Amino acid sequence: MTTIDIPEGSLFGIDNLPYGVFEADGAAPRVGVRVADTVVDLAATLGDDVFAQPSLNPFMAQGKARWDEVRSRIVELVQGDLPAEALHAVSDVTMRLPFDVADYVDFYASENHATNLGKLFRPDSAPLMPNWKHLPVGYHGRSSTVIVSGVDVVRPCGQRKLPGDDAPTYGPSVRLDIEAEMGFVVGVPSPLGSPIAPDEFAEHVFGAVIVNDWSARDIQAWEYVPLGPFLGKSFATSVSPWVVPLAALDAARVATPVQDPTPLPYLQGEQKWGLDIDLAVEWNGDVVTRPPYAGMYWSPAQMLAHTTINGAASSTGDLFASGTISGPEKDQRGAFIELTWGGKEPVEVAAEQRTFLEDGDEIAISATAPGASGGRIGFGEVRSRILPATETGR
Amino acid sequence: MTTIDIPEGSLFGIDNLPYGVFEADGAAPRVGVRVADTVVDLAATLGDDVFAQPSLNPFMAQGKARWDEVRSRIVELVQGDLPAEALHAVSDVTMRLPFDVADYVDFYASENHATNLGKLFRPDSAPLMPNWKHLPVGYHGRSSTVIVSGVDVVRPCGQRKLPGDDAPTYGPSVRLDIEAEMGFVVGVPSPLGSPIAPDEFAEHVFGAVIVNDWSARDIQAWEYVPLGPFLGKSFATSVSPWVVPLAALDAARVATPVQDPTPLPYLQGEQKWGLDIDLAVEWNGDVVTRPPYAGMYWSPAQMLAHTTINGAASSTGDLFASGTISGPEKDQRGAFIELTWGGKEPVEVAAEQRTFLEDGDEIAISATAPGASGGRIGFGEVRSRILPATETGR
Repeated sequence: MTTIDIPEGSLFGIDNLPYGVFEADGAAPRVGVRVADTVVDLAATLGDDVFAQPSLNPFMAQGKARWDEVRSRIVELVQGDLPAEALHAVSDVTMRLPFDVADYVDFYASENHATNLGKLFRPDSAPLMPNWKHLPVGYHGRSSTVIVSGVDVVRPCGQRKLPGDDAPTYGPSVRLDIEAEMGFVVGVPSPLGSPIAPDEFAEHVFGAVIVNDWSARDIQAWEYVPLGPFLGKSFATSVSPWVVPLAALDAARVATPVQDPTPLPYLQGEQKWGLDIDLAVEWNGDVVTRPPYAGMYWSPAQMLAHTTINGAASSTGDLFASGTISGPEKDQRGAFIELTWGGKEPVEVAAEQRTFLEDGDEIAISATAPGASGGRIGFGEVRSRILPATETGR
Repeated sequence: MTTIDIPEGSLFGIDNLPYGVFEADGAAPRVGVRVADTVVDLAATLGDDVFAQPSLNPFMAQGKARWDEVRSRIVELVQGDLPAEALHAVSDVTMRLPFDVADYVDFYASENHATNLGKLFRPDSAPLMPNWKHLPVGYHGRSSTVIVSGVDVVRPCGQRKLPGDDAPTYGPSVRLDIEAEMGFVVGVPSPLGSPIAPDEFAEHVFGAVIVNDWSARDIQAWEYVPLGPFLGKSFATSVSPWVVPLAALDAARVATPVQDPTPLPYLQGEQKWGLDIDLAVEWNGDVVTRPPYAGMYWSPAQMLAHTTINGAASSTGDLFASGTISGPEKDQRGAFIELTWGGKEPVEVAAEQRTFLEDGDEIAISATAPGASGGRIGFGEVRSRILPATETGR
């Protein structure tokens, strides 16, 4: 038997306890919880087969009472002795996609981001559309291309019309970009015809991950009218491997910015679901921007309420992401198209002037939030490398 | 033992043999094939557990060689004697959703429809966007709300801004509409980074269904800029229960209309994948429109090639739909917003003047195509009733 050493200031102390799916020692993937730099094998310690699965979905489907019970048991367990064979060093395991993605929805909930993109994509009209302050604008993305941190991203090819060209051409994206976002994972499904009110958020949502919503701006700009983004986004969406349970985010809950005009009643709730999460985006080792989640106009509880208000069902494994998080300052913008203002204002990255992503670049987005005991908790990171395009369509 | 009587002119003769998932006699749902008015239990007749499943996905994943082999065996079997307990009258079974939907994509491939919608939604600009003739415009929809024929559709509530209103309001959609479409179901998946060329279509796509892509026009018009349709579509998408295998559509294959400008090479193929399918839309018993699939500008092979050209993976159970099918004539328009020109030109339905859907309305979309032996084959129908809204968000 052995105990887990939790160093002072660890982002993965007992205030956090995020869940993930790991592979170690050639065994099948299974659910673990992270404590400091240790992964605890939950099937081995709790003796419950719901954790001997390659996905969090079966556990997430069990509901909040069960999530709370397991969290309490883990808090007790990890403060005592544990069988050594149930513990793995984080550095010794391979993390897998933590859940099977059902429907994936991406929102557009940062006023700064929506304003900046409006100016860049539609310079001749008002940057915010008339609907933007009345509802959380969102769209469905591609579930099958949600990948986990560590999986390389191949530069997408596709159709784009470059400035000065008369006609569109096929080729690798020349404006490949990131979007730093937070994502929320549904545990308890809702059937057709049962909207989830904002104050029912915690009964349905299991936890949160960091999302990098890769975006090929040239493909997107050409394709997106009138039905929205498609190929410009659908090649890859990366998520961090550790799902931070909602219960760990209690101390991070804040009010959203004042919403004016007042949203319709179905978007109103008593509970605060703004989240004081600080993100940092590292580009080839340099932190280039620090997007603050606390300033997001729409809360994730409002996003889920909106998604289901028409009677749409939700499923265990539904992932919905916030949209790019951008603060008011330049060095808080969560996408490079904003940070470099459409490529016109390069930023310095590892002593080079850079605009969009080049092959070989490595991006790591990390995030932390206040924890229950006064310290901070971590989401870990979503880290990915850009590989050159493989052109198959010429 | 017994034989199946196939009447002269049956739309479900041995040229067709569509697959579905049925429930009969209180047994678990399983895969059947339809022959005339009989459902043949495939697990019982072929003795293969891949058919003793509540979904076509395991069979669809087995690939084209296997699909061809099973089709040949069924042709032999149904012309001989079959055990009576493996046969059920169509009227005695309940049909289930035939496949588990992975990603759902909806296209916009009818030039007449896109032109009509452009005029109605954006009267002050050119109806076709500059990209429309260069790529099949599409977007992701909600997989979890794909339902089968026979499941009622509850009128969705949501946010919409009605003409003359200063601000949006919440309430039941007042412009509920249909979209008559064909949908295509992927059997053999493709991994990340492996685009499916147009001429590889038949290696991946298992078959086709009729789709009714319900649309709340008031919700859609308010929400859809700039990221496309979301709540206006995501409450329900209905499909017909019988998946007609691609092999049954050989005689229906035609060239698409001339595509000018010539599409980029990744959208070109040697094979013809236009489809001569005739649809009919029945509104409370009256056929109000007959959309012809043969006129669709983009072929389903081009849709799949486009979806994957950026390296996006595809999965067994992916469903992609054509978008509304509208011919050049008024009585060939596949959505009521076009048929009634935004509600300004009512049509006569069961002796009433009608524009959009009212509670209690029943819609049935059917489709037929030429079969291999000179007759016609049927897709059956997707039939649904509109129930009143249940307002939960006030």
